Amino acid sequence: MQIVKKILEGDIKTAARFIRDIDDKMPNVSNVLKKLYPHTGHAYIIGITGFPGVGKSTLVDQLIQVIREQGKSVGVISIDPTSPFSGGAILGDRIRMQRNALDDDVFIRSLATRGYFGGLTASTKGVVDVMDAMGKDFILVETVGVGQDEVDVMNVAHSTLIVLIPGMGDNIQAIKAGILEVGDIFVINKADQKGVERTVRDIQIMIEIDQSLKRGEDKDGWVPKIMRTQAIAGVGTKELFDQIIVHRDFLFGEGIDYYKKRKYLRDRLELLDMIESKILGDMINRLEKSGELDEALGKMYDDNIDPYTLCDDIIERLLHKDI
Amino acid sequence: MQIVKKILEGDIKTAARFIRDIDDKMPNVSNVLKKLYPHTGHAYIIGITGFPGVGKSTLVDQLIQVIREQGKSVGVISIDPTSPFSGGAILGDRIRMQRNALDDDVFIRSLATRGYFGGLTASTKGVVDVMDAMGKDFILVETVGVGQDEVDVMNVAHSTLIVLIPGMGDNIQAIKAGILEVGDIFVINKADQKGVERTVRDIQIMIEIDQSLKRGEDKDGWVPKIMRTQAIAGVGTKELFDQIIVHRDFLFGEGIDYYKKRKYLRDRLELLDMIESKILGDMINRLEKSGELDEALGKMYDDNIDPYTLCDDIIERLLHKDI
Repeated sequence: MQIVKKILEGDIKTAARFIRDIDDKMPNVSNVLKKLYPHTGHAYIIGITGFPGVGKSTLVDQLIQVIREQGKSVGVISIDPTSPFSGGAILGDRIRMQRNALDDDVFIRSLATRGYFGGLTASTKGVVDVMDAMGKDFILVETVGVGQDEVDVMNVAHSTLIVLIPGMGDNIQAIKAGILEVGDIFVINKADQKGVERTVRDIQIMIEIDQSLKRGEDKDGWVPKIMRTQAIAGVGTKELFDQIIVHRDFLFGEGIDYYKKRKYLRDRLELLDMIESKILGDMINRLEKSGELDEALGKMYDDNIDPYTLCDDIIERLLHKDI
Repeated sequence: MQIVKKILEGDIKTAARFIRDIDDKMPNVSNVLKKLYPHTGHAYIIGITGFPGVGKSTLVDQLIQVIREQGKSVGVISIDPTSPFSGGAILGDRIRMQRNALDDDVFIRSLATRGYFGGLTASTKGVVDVMDAMGKDFILVETVGVGQDEVDVMNVAHSTLIVLIPGMGDNIQAIKAGILEVGDIFVINKADQKGVERTVRDIQIMIEIDQSLKRGEDKDGWVPKIMRTQAIAGVGTKELFDQIIVHRDFLFGEGIDYYKKRKYLRDRLELLDMIESKILGDMINRLEKSGELDEALGKMYDDNIDPYTLCDDIIERLLHKDI
């Protein structure tokens, strides 16, 4: 296929158009991804998550510089549900694209949409595969927010960075265990602000409790590290990148058994997400086209039929392809 | 059914056990919900969301007091994905339950789990129906976090409160449009902290832009209000509740057309979520039991078959009930 060939050659226009197709969950997507897959596995994937306002974008920009200084190429995937109000993702892309316009080895894309039937992880995995097949050495996956969706998305990363700022006392306690569990490196950004020691200590304690709860094999895993940065001034970002490389060397070195186990669980989740998103995509499409949903709501309002019964009816017909 | 009768009588033990079944997505659940449904529609449902650390729990506690002072009964649903680390939801429940132990008209439950196949909105809707059927006058649905899941859950509420604190400048800009759209009342909590005027102004501008973007019919809808509270001192919470009642009176009065249109869209989303969660629940169960997923991963590792092909194979067999 022409499109596969072009992506493998690193053609930015073709890749950008195909990524939009992934984001829009177009039906042709998986045939191309099947052909790209044998050419993936080279890229090292770094996930970056944290509450809005902690400076994730600045940190990502700094990491791009560090990676480029080492002569490596980089892809960036920014995950941000469509924001018709601020146009955040798209606007951010343009600004960044301009800054890196002359550098072919920096490729930045946003995943903007989110269907009603999940599949955010599956879409992200697809875009990662595209950038990987293009030959990018590093892929940064940046998410806005710290919901369950974001935790799930982090499954695609080799190293996951949780970005925090000092003085988030309440917030740290509120960080979901899921986030703690995916975090390989905790980055305290804006580390010149007061309260930084307290924040470092709080996370240290969290990590220690988490480690002490682990038994047996899990103990041989990675103990999350804490790094301090002032991304806006470029302070600590080189050291942060070095720490990411330390994590990478651990995963593919002495931690290989831990890595393989973790990879298996994550691949499993990814496959599950892919299956779910495809099944639902198909069925919801059929439902939307058939007008069945509105008919059911009519029955609910006019004939006082409860939604639980309507749900069972619709499923029965969906599975028998009567819809 | 005995369980339906007991829930309609307001039996707390039976209701609590059944709510756990909903949370665990037990198969018997929908039969009971079908029977409870004709007894719902009395309760007024209030959604409360916002970033961790803004004081949502304290605000909920204060609203409970205000509602009880008016002689009305209240149910509280706290949505918090299982947190094995902090045990947040469960612990919080216990503390609150103790405080309200002598008051039969306060019923507090947490939804702790979250499956890999969505359905959080469907579960929440189920629990709301239970509490509604028990005869609660008000039901407060509190979520932790502001991800897409939380936005979706807010669909079940009549009035949705977005809780913020002063000085969240960056955060406010980062609030997803989805959140803005579900927000009926913006609550600036900790309103004694500096920066409150700025925060109020920022939200005011957001609301104005949002309103100016709306055309035609939508213009006759509700214009979100901004309220200030210091929940910890009980300041402003009575006024907040009064504002909720103003919103309720609007929805069922002059705003009835707007309300009906909004309710239709929300009922549609709920039904869709219910269908999705049931279809996937069934299929994922079959997948897990059959060992098909692990077999597929074996093929991926050993025979180098790409996940996209494996996904298509599994779906093919799932739909033909070969799994």
